[in-house]
Amino acid sequence: MRAPLVAAVDVGGTRVKAALVDPAGREVVSLTDPTPAGLGAPGALVGVVVAAVEALRSRATDGGEPVEVSACGVVVPGIVDDAAGVARWSANLGWRDLPVVEPLASALGVPVALGHDVRAGLVAEARFGAAQGFSNVLFMPIGTGIAGALMLDGHVVVADGWSGELGHVVVVPDGPPCGCGASGCLEAVASAAAIERAYAAASGQRRAGEAIAALVAEGDEVASRVWATAVDALARAVVLTTTLTGVSRVLVGGGLAHAGDVLLGPLRDAVAASLTFQRRPTIAEAALGDRAGCLGAACLAFDLA
Amino acid sequence: MRAPLVAAVDVGGTRVKAALVDPAGREVVSLTDPTPAGLGAPGALVGVVVAAVEALRSRATDGGEPVEVSACGVVVPGIVDDAAGVARWSANLGWRDLPVVEPLASALGVPVALGHDVRAGLVAEARFGAAQGFSNVLFMPIGTGIAGALMLDGHVVVADGWSGELGHVVVVPDGPPCGCGASGCLEAVASAAAIERAYAAASGQRRAGEAIAALVAEGDEVASRVWATAVDALARAVVLTTTLTGVSRVLVGGGLAHAGDVLLGPLRDAVAASLTFQRRPTIAEAALGDRAGCLGAACLAFDLA
Repeated sequence: MRAPLVAAVDVGGTRVKAALVDPAGREVVSLTDPTPAGLGAPGALVGVVVAAVEALRSRATDGGEPVEVSACGVVVPGIVDDAAGVARWSANLGWRDLPVVEPLASALGVPVALGHDVRAGLVAEARFGAAQGFSNVLFMPIGTGIAGALMLDGHVVVADGWSGELGHVVVVPDGPPCGCGASGCLEAVASAAAIERAYAAASGQRRAGEAIAALVAEGDEVASRVWATAVDALARAVVLTTTLTGVSRVLVGGGLAHAGDVLLGPLRDAVAASLTFQRRPTIAEAALGDRAGCLGAACLAFDLA
Repeated sequence: MRAPLVAAVDVGGTRVKAALVDPAGREVVSLTDPTPAGLGAPGALVGVVVAAVEALRSRATDGGEPVEVSACGVVVPGIVDDAAGVARWSANLGWRDLPVVEPLASALGVPVALGHDVRAGLVAEARFGAAQGFSNVLFMPIGTGIAGALMLDGHVVVADGWSGELGHVVVVPDGPPCGCGASGCLEAVASAAAIERAYAAASGQRRAGEAIAALVAEGDEVASRVWATAVDALARAVVLTTTLTGVSRVLVGGGLAHAGDVLLGPLRDAVAASLTFQRRPTIAEAALGDRAGCLGAACLAFDLA
């Protein structure tokens, strides 16, 4: 007899990650597939989630029978109304006001929770990862863009789906243009994509973020200058978030977090140099990597029970 | 027979405001006294609160007898640990780790709640004032300094007493020095005191904030230039708070809010011009004026029951 399992599905812009998860946060079986096109069409997202859950159930047989799951959690990017169970808007995935919870619960025959990928990732970090024991946390995944999620007084802030747009906080007035239409947004200065653009402009060579981090570690001058600009912007964002909200823990996630202390070392120094009377947050790498969203979906599913 | 009353006391840097308050938020009797010196000494704060409550009770007699109160709420500035009932630190009032709830409950013989003046003011605005019906609110009192309090998902954020230091968010990198040791803090650019300093520097004449607002309304050029700088800084703070937290309501309080649309008109325009995809908050004057803290203390007291 297994512990009760839940199904967890993280539908991202490029990949669908799914798993059956036990109460300790272990993925009993998991899969990763490319995200199909056309998910904004009626029924398409539900079809993808149901297929993923059925594939997982048939692999995790229990005495020859597909294993039972007690609930299903789904997380998606964009503006998500967790309470209404509706995916309000996603630029990448092309939907608007897409009902998820009701049709999916009908199709699967189990209770379904819908959440936001980054907010749910923070729930998972708090339960199983690097935010354990903290009640006031900023989770900041840095990749092509920069996202944010806030846990304050032990509660992950939703604000009708509008909280956490840290990537679009202006940190360099009159800075480089951002895709959102503003200038000097954190994402336009310090995302992996922004760092790659800045390095290409300064050196004439295209390098991926991780390669640039390696150059910084070797002391390369151009890479170090580009990196310092990004770190300074990230530090401003951490400092203003700390000042405004009182977080005591900052978790850096996403692809750029793989740079480890090449990123976290100077970021910690810059934050410490800017804070005056405020509480000083500890800054650490997120623990769950690219499984945070899927494990977060599992947390939402367990919380239904 | 009266409705049950609570005692509410707001101990500020210059004045003590106290009232007996009914469940509808009406002050049945109230008083305002100058704040005595030496409140950091053991027993001093408790003595001041007890004296205020006794004075109020004897004025609000019920058939010749001093009226009963069911609970007492006290709010103070600085870093406040609501849960522990301890006033952690106040620069103005000179205390550090001052126990309040326990000695005061012993002295008064009723349950006591301790809170932070601005956070409690937001609770009062949400219950009786201009934040009614909103779940995600920034309350921004602008006076000698600039404070902030956040309600997110219906909950006023505490973060162990560290949340809401909006006045020390840097809005002008390398801007004017702030008392906290940093440069370009919102408070150093847009508080009433900062506006008065900037006007004096630009015109050679000392004017109070309200007089400067009146000059702006008349179209005075120097005053308008000083005012625009402050409004721009306030707009940046509102925009970054909206982006990060998802608030849909911004309440401007404090002395500068008396400028009304001279302040709120251009602030609304500047915020609307800076937001791109974000939810647009409505911006309004706080409703409770300088009674917000005292009414907030009453809310804390009612919540004990």
